[in-house]
Amino acid sequence: MRRPLIALLTDFGTRDGYVAAMKAVILKGLDDVEFVDISHEVDPFRIESAAYVLYSVFDFFPSGTIFLCVVDPGVGTARKALAVEVGRKYLVGPDNGLFSWVLKSGGYRAFSLENVSLFRSSVSSTFHGRDVFAPVAAYLASGGQIDAVGTGCEPYIAEWTEVDRGVAEVKGQVIHIDRFGNLITNIRKDCLPEGVVKSSNFRVRVGDKAIESIVNTYGDVPEGALCALWGSYDHLEISVCCGNASETLSAGIGDRVFCRW
Amino acid sequence: MRRPLIALLTDFGTRDGYVAAMKAVILKGLDDVEFVDISHEVDPFRIESAAYVLYSVFDFFPSGTIFLCVVDPGVGTARKALAVEVGRKYLVGPDNGLFSWVLKSGGYRAFSLENVSLFRSSVSSTFHGRDVFAPVAAYLASGGQIDAVGTGCEPYIAEWTEVDRGVAEVKGQVIHIDRFGNLITNIRKDCLPEGVVKSSNFRVRVGDKAIESIVNTYGDVPEGALCALWGSYDHLEISVCCGNASETLSAGIGDRVFCRW
Amino acid sequence: MRRPLIALLTDFGTRDGYVAAMKAVILKGLDDVEFVDISHEVDPFRIESAAYVLYSVFDFFPSGTIFLCVVDPGVGTARKALAVEVGRKYLVGPDNGLFSWVLKSGGYRAFSLENVSLFRSSVSSTFHGRDVFAPVAAYLASGGQIDAVGTGCEPYIAEWTEVDRGVAEVKGQVIHIDRFGNLITNIRKDCLPEGVVKSSNFRVRVGDKAIESIVNTYGDVPEGALCALWGSYDHLEISVCCGNASETLSAGIGDRVFCRW
Repeated sequence: MRRPLIALLTDFGTRDGYVAAMKAVILKGLDDVEFVDISHEVDPFRIESAAYVLYSVFDFFPSGTIFLCVVDPGVGTARKALAVEVGRKYLVGPDNGLFSWVLKSGGYRAFSLENVSLFRSSVSSTFHGRDVFAPVAAYLASGGQIDAVGTGCEPYIAEWTEVDRGVAEVKGQVIHIDRFGNLITNIRKDCLPEGVVKSSNFRVRVGDKAIESIVNTYGDVPEGALCALWGSYDHLEISVCCGNASETLSAGIGDRVFCRW
Repeated sequence: MRRPLIALLTDFGTRDGYVAAMKAVILKGLDDVEFVDISHEVDPFRIESAAYVLYSVFDFFPSGTIFLCVVDPGVGTARKALAVEVGRKYLVGPDNGLFSWVLKSGGYRAFSLENVSLFRSSVSSTFHGRDVFAPVAAYLASGGQIDAVGTGCEPYIAEWTEVDRGVAEVKGQVIHIDRFGNLITNIRKDCLPEGVVKSSNFRVRVGDKAIESIVNTYGDVPEGALCALWGSYDHLEISVCCGNASETLSAGIGDRVFCRW
Repeated sequence: MRRPLIALLTDFGTRDGYVAAMKAVILKGLDDVEFVDISHEVDPFRIESAAYVLYSVFDFFPSGTIFLCVVDPGVGTARKALAVEVGRKYLVGPDNGLFSWVLKSGGYRAFSLENVSLFRSSVSSTFHGRDVFAPVAAYLASGGQIDAVGTGCEPYIAEWTEVDRGVAEVKGQVIHIDRFGNLITNIRKDCLPEGVVKSSNFRVRVGDKAIESIVNTYGDVPEGALCALWGSYDHLEISVCCGNASETLSAGIGDRVFCRW
């Protein structure tokens, strides 16, 4: 039989013992488990970025996977804590928009974590990853029923999953910057009219800088040239061929991106 | 039955294959094992920092965990190599102070690694992690008796676990800098009189820079303000709210920290 | 019985979900597997560097290990994709020289990946790690026969595994820079006459900078001094004692290195 699978996503970095403390807490409660680290190098507190990374891997994991996600600038405040079942997989983490992309198309059951008997006996105000979310993930991994964690609730879907639609225009923003400096935006293929996408007959602007080329793959422009393309998950990306678009454009997460046609 | 659990802590980084070589050696000797990486991004050769990170996660791991710790600037010199049993967990690594915080309160049995039949057949002068410590960790993980690794000995407890106590003053130092640039010191709550801690009626200085605010949580000061607080493990920390104290103060590991009341 | 062991080596970094996507695909196909991450911090697209890191750990892994290696600047072009059996271990990855050091001494059976029924049902042009190599690794891990992946072929052995031999001279290059800034070269002990190696009676130059000392270990020169030595795998390395040779010499992968005697 398959061991329970827990996939972890945080902004904790790897200098300190934070991730290991969460895994240790889980291993105290479970005889056997498989961990997969999605990333612990999310830019600190950048929920948009974490939400995209989670979305980019979610579908590939097998049924039953528990996603333990902690990017939690509001730890210790009144933000809710969540466990969610969606597509026979489970999400555990703060209710701050982290799960927005995965939950946007519905089909989930969400619960607010209230059953304190599942938490560590002493809950700190700064490290719910270890004291709340890890124990709840272990509980689910050991076959616990999700509706026993608390009461049903409606999770927060962040506004940055939406673009502003105008006349022959869409305004979005950068939500993630990958290792290669590519800017991933919240503008999805279905935000533009089908004909416009097909003809690639539109212009892209990041802040006040125009991106002239709309291409199919990175290799379609000369080295060093800026281009825009539809990435793996149908999000518009801004790239520099063999270069770093984030540095070239001095662009960061949250910067405005415009498509006009 | 639970698989043996080996937790790894090194300053080897993740660019090279050093950590993988240690895991490979262990997997050659053991049919089944669970690895948890504590960190491999300890600042090169900073034993103080590694000792704190180990201490910060030690209690959370289950009984039987084997901690394989290699921050070893003295590799190839006469420093001893250790295996230690403490609180039904095991430590394997160089005798250079790495285990100081965990062993400080006693209750351990320590052995000097001398049984060369447990080592790899050829031991390099530069990589005891792979050639000495990993095989001994595998030996313990497979149920080997700790007293067969060598003769009993007294491990080295580093002087940086102690502070200088003066009249209405304590002098300590920075021992770790976390991902967020917070300075963690060796000044623990019990180094100050109880009343002084309770009233927060003391001043903190890092080098010649005064830290005015003693607070309960990071959020208690305005953004960008310096503050001191008692961290998760009762060590005094210096922070900048939403900022980086290490950069703001140009402070590093080993820098002097003063508390006066 | 031992779980199948898959060791991963990529230049994907750890900010994004690329590595997790590969592991997820494997876990969908396999009930149980052990992952060991060799490195995901190979300098982007530096095949020489990845080939050396792979070589430096290969021998330590147990029989049956599957090495899933993806440093693949030519993804989407006509470069072949490979599965190779060598020394009762398996290599899966692009045919771009990545396996050169491991395969250089022969004794392998190599196959070009052509059996598309083993791939993911939809293969992207940019992420063969997830869509081609991970599924083939899972297939081998579940006991699949290697000769069913495609037709036999001769893998590409890169020219940077060879040095230029002159009269009393060898010209090589830097192939890897480790965490400490040491320059690892493609000049192996057996590239020089035995007597010259034994007497250390030769001079080393990196670009136009002379390295005066040939030493046995890092500690044999004063702090800050440049030296050359034979590293763990008999490759010539250039180091600065307690310093960073790559920064001191402004040297990078591909830079020329000369030995004269």
